[in-house]
Amino acid sequence: MPAIKTIGILTSGGDAPGMNAAIRAVTRSAIFSGFKVKGIYRGYRGLITNEIVEFKTQNVSNIIQMGGTILKTARCKEFETAEGRQLAYDTIRQHGIDALVVIGGDGSLTGARIFASEFNFPIIGLPGTIDNDLFGTDKTIGYDTALNTIMECVDKIRDTATSHERLFFIEVMGRDAGFLALNGAIAAGAEAAIIPEISTEVDQLAELIQNGFRKSKNSSIVLVAESPVTGGAMALAERVKNEYPGYDVRVSILGHLQRGGSPTASDRILASRLGSAAIDALLEDQRNVMIGISNDQIVYVPFSKAIKNDKPINRDLLNTLRRLSI
Amino acid sequence: MPAIKTIGILTSGGDAPGMNAAIRAVTRSAIFSGFKVKGIYRGYRGLITNEIVEFKTQNVSNIIQMGGTILKTARCKEFETAEGRQLAYDTIRQHGIDALVVIGGDGSLTGARIFASEFNFPIIGLPGTIDNDLFGTDKTIGYDTALNTIMECVDKIRDTATSHERLFFIEVMGRDAGFLALNGAIAAGAEAAIIPEISTEVDQLAELIQNGFRKSKNSSIVLVAESPVTGGAMALAERVKNEYPGYDVRVSILGHLQRGGSPTASDRILASRLGSAAIDALLEDQRNVMIGISNDQIVYVPFSKAIKNDKPINRDLLNTLRRLSI
Amino acid sequence: MPAIKTIGILTSGGDAPGMNAAIRAVTRSAIFSGFKVKGIYRGYRGLITNEIVEFKTQNVSNIIQMGGTILKTARCKEFETAEGRQLAYDTIRQHGIDALVVIGGDGSLTGARIFASEFNFPIIGLPGTIDNDLFGTDKTIGYDTALNTIMECVDKIRDTATSHERLFFIEVMGRDAGFLALNGAIAAGAEAAIIPEISTEVDQLAELIQNGFRKSKNSSIVLVAESPVTGGAMALAERVKNEYPGYDVRVSILGHLQRGGSPTASDRILASRLGSAAIDALLEDQRNVMIGISNDQIVYVPFSKAIKNDKPINRDLLNTLRRLSI
Amino acid sequence: MPAIKTIGILTSGGDAPGMNAAIRAVTRSAIFSGFKVKGIYRGYRGLITNEIVEFKTQNVSNIIQMGGTILKTARCKEFETAEGRQLAYDTIRQHGIDALVVIGGDGSLTGARIFASEFNFPIIGLPGTIDNDLFGTDKTIGYDTALNTIMECVDKIRDTATSHERLFFIEVMGRDAGFLALNGAIAAGAEAAIIPEISTEVDQLAELIQNGFRKSKNSSIVLVAESPVTGGAMALAERVKNEYPGYDVRVSILGHLQRGGSPTASDRILASRLGSAAIDALLEDQRNVMIGISNDQIVYVPFSKAIKNDKPINRDLLNTLRRLSI
Repeated sequence: MPAIKTIGILTSGGDAPGMNAAIRAVTRSAIFSGFKVKGIYRGYRGLITNEIVEFKTQNVSNIIQMGGTILKTARCKEFETAEGRQLAYDTIRQHGIDALVVIGGDGSLTGARIFASEFNFPIIGLPGTIDNDLFGTDKTIGYDTALNTIMECVDKIRDTATSHERLFFIEVMGRDAGFLALNGAIAAGAEAAIIPEISTEVDQLAELIQNGFRKSKNSSIVLVAESPVTGGAMALAERVKNEYPGYDVRVSILGHLQRGGSPTASDRILASRLGSAAIDALLEDQRNVMIGISNDQIVYVPFSKAIKNDKPINRDLLNTLRRLSI
Repeated sequence: MPAIKTIGILTSGGDAPGMNAAIRAVTRSAIFSGFKVKGIYRGYRGLITNEIVEFKTQNVSNIIQMGGTILKTARCKEFETAEGRQLAYDTIRQHGIDALVVIGGDGSLTGARIFASEFNFPIIGLPGTIDNDLFGTDKTIGYDTALNTIMECVDKIRDTATSHERLFFIEVMGRDAGFLALNGAIAAGAEAAIIPEISTEVDQLAELIQNGFRKSKNSSIVLVAESPVTGGAMALAERVKNEYPGYDVRVSILGHLQRGGSPTASDRILASRLGSAAIDALLEDQRNVMIGISNDQIVYVPFSKAIKNDKPINRDLLNTLRRLSI
Repeated sequence: MPAIKTIGILTSGGDAPGMNAAIRAVTRSAIFSGFKVKGIYRGYRGLITNEIVEFKTQNVSNIIQMGGTILKTARCKEFETAEGRQLAYDTIRQHGIDALVVIGGDGSLTGARIFASEFNFPIIGLPGTIDNDLFGTDKTIGYDTALNTIMECVDKIRDTATSHERLFFIEVMGRDAGFLALNGAIAAGAEAAIIPEISTEVDQLAELIQNGFRKSKNSSIVLVAESPVTGGAMALAERVKNEYPGYDVRVSILGHLQRGGSPTASDRILASRLGSAAIDALLEDQRNVMIGISNDQIVYVPFSKAIKNDKPINRDLLNTLRRLSI
Repeated sequence: MPAIKTIGILTSGGDAPGMNAAIRAVTRSAIFSGFKVKGIYRGYRGLITNEIVEFKTQNVSNIIQMGGTILKTARCKEFETAEGRQLAYDTIRQHGIDALVVIGGDGSLTGARIFASEFNFPIIGLPGTIDNDLFGTDKTIGYDTALNTIMECVDKIRDTATSHERLFFIEVMGRDAGFLALNGAIAAGAEAAIIPEISTEVDQLAELIQNGFRKSKNSSIVLVAESPVTGGAMALAERVKNEYPGYDVRVSILGHLQRGGSPTASDRILASRLGSAAIDALLEDQRNVMIGISNDQIVYVPFSKAIKNDKPINRDLLNTLRRLSI
């Protein structure tokens, strides 16, 4: 492999606030260290459709505060095939790209891992997902912003007039991980969270009802992780209607707005540090690692470890939530 | 009728941001003018259940910025019966309340009108509803905040990665009125709004599709007023799937969060002016009028006129929206 | 004058949130009606330095929510000279620009008026200033956002622990007009406002102190318009120290942040309507008018009238503020 | 010492967003574990003036989202004297308070340490300060919110039209610690930060100018920690005028608004966890420790260690900032 001169950068998968801050950090740190930078549009698809432009420092001016990603993102079926990846590799050669920085979640890093090994090509991953479900990093880019967005929505819902005895299910993102639901519930002062991590162990809904979730005459708010394991808010509401007919149940599904918004300070700083560290990693001849943060220190996490391990949720938080909702 | 010495205040119906600012303004203006003030909890129900406390100026300190209503609100079936209203009147006599200020929407003012006429009792209404659907006032308390909340949600949804050719229906409140949907669409830079006012005249969905709503490869966002007349976002999405199968349709229902949040400057100022004017009106021996704002001037609108007339929507805005979404 | 084919657009003077929404509306409405559009950078200076690019509908995509102005703005001394304006006119001819839309405040519209008359050139003005001090329009673009920004800052300041008997002067913008100070005070629940409009009539500080501004043991907050007439917050604090030494005075100067931020719904809608109406006005052969809004209707205001007349402040609001701060 | 039955809680020193969330967590966790809770108003002063009320779970309902502190805070000179502390102790005995939870910064915990040792009285401290300058905890309650507030202000300032070559000093809090200035600069995409930690080592202003801080024609923004060591923004601006007369310098002092605002998710969760852990600590017979968070785990930090040790700033962040501002 020749020395790296040009670095390609792309965002992939579901977008997350702070991706732009990461793009800015990667671009400027790379230029600072003498590299050329090429921006690849719409994730891996841009490698196949050849949507690539050179990025100068001005290309990333005034984007740190923007939600979404200026590079766009898309899911790309073709990149899951050997033919697609060959096309992508051809494009990379054609543009003289010597290394990639990929910002995305589990699926995106899986793609990176396969591509890197097939073509012996250096890739650095940055954890960009609101779900916070990547192993090896305390936080992922976008998680803090999504958590604040959820909290602000629940704050607004709680403002509204509360008839008595209402049970409110608010569905938040988190297919495989309850970070948003559990921490969102604590932050918003909600009564409970229903999360996938313990769905097979206990019947969280039954427990909730049996514990007498209502301590006052006010409405109770329960955050539900959108997941096949929890069933989601709609299915839970259906169960309540059938099994506990005394309750007046309402459902609110926060949906896509959780992915947007100007990133919080924490997400911008995280993205700036990780993006800058991605270039350090390349300078140190690292490859095929995800840059993470652990105990406020930069760490390198092999792709396989980041992807394959479940990130544990802090179960003490379930107790904290229970104590504070009395 | 003896001279008014004590004024009761209540909030009724769906709550709206700025109700607290109105409660503060009524209370302080009343005390400033030498009246006693009694706060009635949970709307008309509090008149039946006797949930009433005297309000001093401190009771309304530091509430101007709060969403919801410190007096709570509830819908009250009993008040729709003659017996219920008699109970309410007895409570009012018992507390020495000589006049009422009622903050709420169409249904609440209808209740006020009936009660006022049955018992020859002075009531002043304040328009408090996010729907902006009361005739005789340019704006209702809560409308501006809800409009901003909707806009911020759509801003966030638009941030997210846009696959091509996606059609996004975002359902907002407005059972009988398209103010939120139409103005929200203009404010958020959405492509179109589907509103009840013209639902019987044209097939808005068909028109939208036929006009070729997509001018770019980006997703298109359409705001839909939640109304039996429009059908709501879900039904429209269903129609698209059946009638225009080429589109990738998504639905987001903003729901209850539209009622909450700290009120905007405009809503706080409106509530402060209307609340203050309610006391002026009582001092001028007005009764059974809603206080409104028209061309930035305080106006008195007879209950019957405020309730019975449809408030027209400015149809020029439909053209503005169309021109700006090219 | 030949028929108009190409419209130039510029923003000038102090920038205001919503200018981007206006740029978008002018551009898209113009293209919708078959015109070409040229964006002129950095206000009148761009006419002298020839910073002009053609604008397509994509140039104004996704800017409605941005603070500032993508066209930048600058104050331009040269444009105040006959030579400078001749240079500007030459540039305009060179680019084939047949009419201008100028978004700005009093100074910018004065420049427009002079230029339009010197060269018999059609110009439409849009009121873009946070100060709301243009005659003939109920609201200017940016005012509502600035008002909300001020309110949010005061909300935060009021949150903080209040030692007793503290007098807080918060200086807000408004060189010649007290709209922001007076309405900001009502919206934030402040105790008083000191505004230029009545500075020569009464000694507002003396009145404030003599009225016993403190009704409780909490701190009192007074909003002060930054103006040579009021003296500004610093000078008032100095006076208090000298003349009323019993008070613990604090000063906060909000400064430049009042000009920034994502525009509110009201400002975006106003900007969209006015920008769209600017093109209508040109289609109707209007020229040398400012587009305003009056009683929710579009109006055309001759430049001379918009600039030369003082816009009166609603003095009832002073009474409202006084009653509500008891 | 008899077994603890009643716990007193107070907030002291400069207030910080999240203090209410901490009050709620302490109160509810205490009640959950069978304790009585007494709320003490205005910090240590309330122990002298006897402003104490019993807190039930309802007293802390719906406060998690509020800025400031419902218990108020004040600085108290008398508590610095032996006589004052004796009065405080008498009040504590009179109310049957067996242990205290004190939420505050360095000065407040110093007071706690002295009092605890003089009267052999159990006290648990919670780190509540926006400055983040307490040793032994990764984060203090209020820091994340203040950081976001600063970032949002700088975002707004950056929005405004940028004449060329302007140098903007924005002063933020942080008497002894540059956490807010340095991290705020990274989050806001500012060009530099001037912080107390390295003030004696290098002339940060000279370095900034000599490094050629301007890379583009846009304005440059520098965050300055308000500190005798840095000199503050005003003094720096004065220096620039004298020593580097070519620059157009502007100053903005964010001031008190940095202490206010609804707490972020991170601050609410931190406050909830620490407040809950304070009760666990008392149950474990801990005393005279500050509850901290380290690597996402609860830790107990002896008062002396928390107060006397300087908390180091991560100097890598200075490099990150420099690289990203090219």
